[in-house]
Amino acid sequence: MNLYCALIHYPVYNKNGKIIVTSITTSSIHDISRTARTYGLSGLFFVTPVARQQRLIETIIEHWKSGYGAGYNPTRRIAFEIIKIVSSLEECLEDIEKAEGERPKIVVTCAKVKKNSIHYPELRDEMNKGNFPWLLLFGTGWGLVDGILDMADRVLEPVRGGSDYNHLSVRAAVAIVLDRLLG
Amino acid sequence: MNLYCALIHYPVYNKNGKIIVTSITTSSIHDISRTARTYGLSGLFFVTPVARQQRLIETIIEHWKSGYGAGYNPTRRIAFEIIKIVSSLEECLEDIEKAEGERPKIVVTCAKVKKNSIHYPELRDEMNKGNFPWLLLFGTGWGLVDGILDMADRVLEPVRGGSDYNHLSVRAAVAIVLDRLLG
Repeated sequence: MNLYCALIHYPVYNKNGKIIVTSITTSSIHDISRTARTYGLSGLFFVTPVARQQRLIETIIEHWKSGYGAGYNPTRRIAFEIIKIVSSLEECLEDIEKAEGERPKIVVTCAKVKKNSIHYPELRDEMNKGNFPWLLLFGTGWGLVDGILDMADRVLEPVRGGSDYNHLSVRAAVAIVLDRLLG
Repeated sequence: MNLYCALIHYPVYNKNGKIIVTSITTSSIHDISRTARTYGLSGLFFVTPVARQQRLIETIIEHWKSGYGAGYNPTRRIAFEIIKIVSSLEECLEDIEKAEGERPKIVVTCAKVKKNSIHYPELRDEMNKGNFPWLLLFGTGWGLVDGILDMADRVLEPVRGGSDYNHLSVRAAVAIVLDRLLG
């Protein structure tokens, strides 16, 4: 089973429920690539339609992949090699289809429980049994738009920590979800 | 059982095995406080002896606790309320002793397996059975110095993701360890 992960920076909601583009943060680039590499993912996509953001992030990635950073910290280079910047979820799906020969099944994480919600052990079993690629989507800002949630083949139950507070960073959420599915 | 967590910024090793002070990063402040709050921790300490760092971080925390940020993002305020900046591990231990009436048992995470290493389910059971406070230490830079590892009552087995790569960020490591112990 090949698992991919994508961080969606557009389209996502802001705190008022409007559809916005969020910025790609360097902390997400650094932390999530290392987490994804630790759990053996096949690829990590950052999705933004903003060309200036794409170029900025490409420049940062190049520093660690082949610039001064590559010699200074080789483990960072290895992590950054699995990152791809794409303009849309559709481009991400096409990219995976090209590599895998078929479209991935889409999994989303959602704060609300949906009709096709699934527990972690169930998805883990399903991933291990099947032979198709999977794509795990994470929203930024105030979460994935309904149109993307509706596209999902599976909706993962929310991560809860046993308190009344439920506002994990996307970096922490990715780490916990990957550990539950692959750890 | 009351669980506390501390990020050690001194004393830790650099990549050449020298003892250094690392900087507190804003990404750790934001991400780890939200993770700690989600899992119901009793307190989150950042340990640095550098007075300028302490003041800088206090200023950032005040912005989110009572400044403009408190109204803009109340969930951030709630997370930041459990943060304390202290000068040393000793000060952290005294602070917990004052609140709990006794010193906490110390747990460290370590990349190497030690003689008193313990698996996650074992520590989870032990924490649930006993009634004493626990303090979970995380190193920054290239890890906790031997002197701190030697102080630990328990050494947690390393987090592995099933690949040959093992370089999680401290923010991802805290999220995964708390989820394994409390999730």
